[in-house]
Amino acid sequence: MSLLKVSKVRFPIVLVNFKTYAEGTGKKALELARFCEKVSLETNVCVAVAPQFVDIASIAAATSIPVFSQHIDPVVYGSFTGHILPKAVKEAGAVGTLINHSERRLKLADIDASVNSAREANLASLVCSNNAAVSAAVAALKPDMIAIEPPELIGTGIPVSKAKPEVVSGTVELVKQINSDVIILCGAGITQGEDVAAALQLGTQGVLVASGIVKAKDQYRALLDFADAILKLRV
Amino acid sequence: MSLLKVSKVRFPIVLVNFKTYAEGTGKKALELARFCEKVSLETNVCVAVAPQFVDIASIAAATSIPVFSQHIDPVVYGSFTGHILPKAVKEAGAVGTLINHSERRLKLADIDASVNSAREANLASLVCSNNAAVSAAVAALKPDMIAIEPPELIGTGIPVSKAKPEVVSGTVELVKQINSDVIILCGAGITQGEDVAAALQLGTQGVLVASGIVKAKDQYRALLDFADAILKLRV
Amino acid sequence: MSLLKVSKVRFPIVLVNFKTYAEGTGKKALELARFCEKVSLETNVCVAVAPQFVDIASIAAATSIPVFSQHIDPVVYGSFTGHILPKAVKEAGAVGTLINHSERRLKLADIDASVNSAREANLASLVCSNNAAVSAAVAALKPDMIAIEPPELIGTGIPVSKAKPEVVSGTVELVKQINSDVIILCGAGITQGEDVAAALQLGTQGVLVASGIVKAKDQYRALLDFADAILKLRV
Amino acid sequence: MSLLKVSKVRFPIVLVNFKTYAEGTGKKALELARFCEKVSLETNVCVAVAPQFVDIASIAAATSIPVFSQHIDPVVYGSFTGHILPKAVKEAGAVGTLINHSERRLKLADIDASVNSAREANLASLVCSNNAAVSAAVAALKPDMIAIEPPELIGTGIPVSKAKPEVVSGTVELVKQINSDVIILCGAGITQGEDVAAALQLGTQGVLVASGIVKAKDQYRALLDFADAILKLRV
Repeated sequence: MSLLKVSKVRFPIVLVNFKTYAEGTGKKALELARFCEKVSLETNVCVAVAPQFVDIASIAAATSIPVFSQHIDPVVYGSFTGHILPKAVKEAGAVGTLINHSERRLKLADIDASVNSAREANLASLVCSNNAAVSAAVAALKPDMIAIEPPELIGTGIPVSKAKPEVVSGTVELVKQINSDVIILCGAGITQGEDVAAALQLGTQGVLVASGIVKAKDQYRALLDFADAILKLRV
Repeated sequence: MSLLKVSKVRFPIVLVNFKTYAEGTGKKALELARFCEKVSLETNVCVAVAPQFVDIASIAAATSIPVFSQHIDPVVYGSFTGHILPKAVKEAGAVGTLINHSERRLKLADIDASVNSAREANLASLVCSNNAAVSAAVAALKPDMIAIEPPELIGTGIPVSKAKPEVVSGTVELVKQINSDVIILCGAGITQGEDVAAALQLGTQGVLVASGIVKAKDQYRALLDFADAILKLRV
Repeated sequence: MSLLKVSKVRFPIVLVNFKTYAEGTGKKALELARFCEKVSLETNVCVAVAPQFVDIASIAAATSIPVFSQHIDPVVYGSFTGHILPKAVKEAGAVGTLINHSERRLKLADIDASVNSAREANLASLVCSNNAAVSAAVAALKPDMIAIEPPELIGTGIPVSKAKPEVVSGTVELVKQINSDVIILCGAGITQGEDVAAALQLGTQGVLVASGIVKAKDQYRALLDFADAILKLRV
Repeated sequence: MSLLKVSKVRFPIVLVNFKTYAEGTGKKALELARFCEKVSLETNVCVAVAPQFVDIASIAAATSIPVFSQHIDPVVYGSFTGHILPKAVKEAGAVGTLINHSERRLKLADIDASVNSAREANLASLVCSNNAAVSAAVAALKPDMIAIEPPELIGTGIPVSKAKPEVVSGTVELVKQINSDVIILCGAGITQGEDVAAALQLGTQGVLVASGIVKAKDQYRALLDFADAILKLRV
């Protein structure tokens, strides 16, 4: 929490996962990050990005928005060829990290170790989970944030906040019983501003989105639509 | 091979694996890469580096030496959060990649797919192996290079080229029977110029080294010692 | 819970993990299981066994004690070559299963799925964990039992119940806050009756033991020592 | 090879993988194994089975046919909870083992270690591969047998021996160049006698089959059809 205060992360948040999409790689990653920054500056809604590892440094250097890593390994300085060192990610300019994304699932003991490694490296931790019970389990590990993403809805354009609102509200309730400090985001199938609004109204504090923004025909407009939906709720 | 011709890779080669060492992370990674470039320019021996993913772009931009990735995943543009996209590594400035390092062992089918992915992304492929039989198996997959590294010697300072010369020469013989095009490097325990010379005299075309350079008290001197040993053999 | 009532499992319990020890394989596994049954009948303390998969059927057929699987995969009838089908383990005679042993760590989503798979196959679930936070996370997944085993003590002969009593009592407290139904066992380093007594006095309902029994010079005596310690506490 | 002579394995062979099919579990596994034995005795064609681990002992005790494990781990007597000990599989009555099935892919170094572990435990080794290049790589590891199974055809009913004969014949040629001793089987999509005949005519010495037999309406007739196709080729 104090961690979240010192970083540039504010809530509600729109966190854009670039995955390994062509539209989110290299030069195009930088362009997309600039659209995110533009919308963030124009609307004062926090828009953060999670680009690929090789693009973290250039995006962190070129923009003012919070940059997340897509994954970290719970390793320290030493002999871990090919692994993601939390301190290296931090030095490259990231302020936070995804952990246990559905496309990069981890062992339970490694999620615990990764949350602790993130804290030691001064990175905000966002652990992804696939259902309410797993979200509750994650809450016991005390990450800064949890993103609930039913894997069957990821990439479908069917928003979890509308298709399965009870999964979201049930997760919020269960998680809060175990750990009232953790911030909950909502992912999977979010493509429009109204999906974002629905997610916030169910008790979450933002969305984790990928194709809905990265593969949008007009990325800037899609981002603006998300931010506007958040602004309307504030009124 | 034609691949190796177009990249900046020449043989004999000294390829320095930065692992996740403190001395090979962030600013220090860039400093070390500059020493590598300096020795390469002074001696005309090819010195290449394999830094962490987040440091590839800055090192490739700041130096003229070949940069390798420490690992790639056999994935394409798409939904592969937290994975290493070969094309992203290439766009960041890498010219090659390690595959199957002993600290990042892969499934056989994934090594095959990664070698093909590297080729498609125009990255030179260097597959690590742990013994002669596995090296022979790897040779059948047609990577550009193989590095034989008995895991029990990694990080020990006991050079495989001196402690187990028969492993190296046996590997060279076995690999050449299956695939005479593949280039063989030697790793594990290399810390001095004479270890490099021994490796070349056993039929390899270079060394894969980590702690011997990265954790040397004087990285520049250690690199120069390696390069000088190669120059002496050329005379 | 109702599950535990219908099976032969009673508490306090001594659950002996045969691992892949020579003294716990094949004929010797059957001999050891008979000692467990003998002590169980003589003392009326519940002694259960977790032999290797190939030995489950013969031990379940030859003895009256509860037999656990060492692992299950969250798979159903179908194309899962080389995996452990919960229903097959049940049909072979097991009444329960270990999940996530420190030597067979699982992804969080798979632990959740395995606990559910065990329930569907009518197997009691015992999830192993490595510390208090992870135990709390596991409790949220609602297994029947949790075994807390600090991995650094496994196989050492240094009992967690004496070396780190605060880990055990802290785990009991944390787990009960999240799920008051779950039964907690204590593992790692248990070799004598007094270690068992210490474990029970810290609020657990039994021990998960391996080398302390399997590799004892006199397995029967060692088992009797464990059971006697439990009987003394009952008085 | 000498290994294959001492076991009950003969060629051409029909090796039936029971996977975790309902029709191949527990009592039904034993029934199916008896059909295999019946056809083997009636036709003198070698029919072998690969049931789940928990069913190995009962099938090996009740029938005279060769029993294979679906997987082994390269572990020895010791602390490997939840793993498949080659010596335990052998003691339970298996004479051989699958390694690296497409549903249980292994790391390259573990395939190498598993082939050696199988040899030490006196188990015939059958390594599965997904294409010609990987088959060639496997051949360098010197297993007793290789089964080529393009994963895209597994379970389809489209036989690799007819849909992609060039994959089979190309594999045979490539493998024989590297290791002329290894025996090659053909898998994926085999459902009829004519598929078996096609496989043998392409230079293989048998088939690895699963759904084609296990899920056949009349398992006995399907087995007889396979064996008859082999007998016809002998004439």
